[in-house]
Amino acid sequence: MPQVQRPLRISTQGKSLANITGQVQALVSESGISTGLCTLFIRHTSASLMIQENADPDVLRDMESFFADLVPEDRQYRHSTEGSDDMPAHIRTALTQTSEHIPIGNSRLALGTWQGIYLWEHRARGSTREVVVHLSGE
Amino acid sequence: MPQVQRPLRISTQGKSLANITGQVQALVSESGISTGLCTLFIRHTSASLMIQENADPDVLRDMESFFADLVPEDRQYRHSTEGSDDMPAHIRTALTQTSEHIPIGNSRLALGTWQGIYLWEHRARGSTREVVVHLSGE
Amino acid sequence: MPQVQRPLRISTQGKSLANITGQVQALVSESGISTGLCTLFIRHTSASLMIQENADPDVLRDMESFFADLVPEDRQYRHSTEGSDDMPAHIRTALTQTSEHIPIGNSRLALGTWQGIYLWEHRARGSTREVVVHLSGE
Repeated sequence: MPQVQRPLRISTQGKSLANITGQVQALVSESGISTGLCTLFIRHTSASLMIQENADPDVLRDMESFFADLVPEDRQYRHSTEGSDDMPAHIRTALTQTSEHIPIGNSRLALGTWQGIYLWEHRARGSTREVVVHLSGE
Repeated sequence: MPQVQRPLRISTQGKSLANITGQVQALVSESGISTGLCTLFIRHTSASLMIQENADPDVLRDMESFFADLVPEDRQYRHSTEGSDDMPAHIRTALTQTSEHIPIGNSRLALGTWQGIYLWEHRARGSTREVVVHLSGE
Repeated sequence: MPQVQRPLRISTQGKSLANITGQVQALVSESGISTGLCTLFIRHTSASLMIQENADPDVLRDMESFFADLVPEDRQYRHSTEGSDDMPAHIRTALTQTSEHIPIGNSRLALGTWQGIYLWEHRARGSTREVVVHLSGE
């Protein structure tokens, strides 16, 4: 069963959710894999992955707002030298996903109609984030 | 290494946790795979997957109660046209799992004694939910 | 595509985060797999897996403190016969991961510079925890 590994680099501009579904699907199409499994792995601890609704942008705004309240920046953290958004970024990553997995069928990601794949930047400053895309199948 | 992909359709009656372990094990048995990996992927953003204690039903009741308090329906959400339970369902999904993965050994899911696989319906109304079961191994 | 499955047993001394990266890398090295995927599965519902910062131990302390406040032991739980830390342990597991997945490249776990793999014991008493390490690749 063949496998393919590709890096995906995403530039982020501060706290934001980037829809990377198209870029992942392009790698699936390139691979020639018809039936299999796609695994995404983000190589950071202050940005994470999430599969979420792709239709109403208000869902993403509510998500950001909820997590901002759940993991407040004005809490007393020991790990604070990199800024008040740093430890919350680690916690938000722990509460969401470092890897996501989508079956491949008919050469397409088998996502539901309303599902998109998002990279969630939790730091206030922009950065370049690296995701490893691992594909296996036939 | 052979792989098998099968859909699993689960009817839910409002907010509830459905134990789908038996249905997943049946697909593993049917596949003939002795050693491998089972990946479950739910094709929705308002229902999720969880591996949790299968013995005391009070664990599931406490879980539901904790998440209901953690993600309140009476919070001000922008995304609210589909009902007050809709945005909380998306957040509860983000906090839990869209995919779960269980190794297969001796033709059985290598779950611990107390582990069951649950589909967690987060919407108040019933629905039919689709899970893709991806099995690979030998 | 070859696959290897190995058990990893970790003794914990009460609530704590154990860095198991070295033990997992040793199994990857032993397997001879150069490119592939490493899946870890913990066979318990009151201990979980987390990929987190491996540099400043204060990150782990803040993480434990945040989760202790988020899931209080003095909340009224129905499932309480095994102690006040038991139901919180189940909830903390639900909020984090039962499985983690790291691509393998050049015979190494493709972790980011600051990423370590942790087993998170959520019970107050010590225990022996079992993780199944599933490796596949070439």
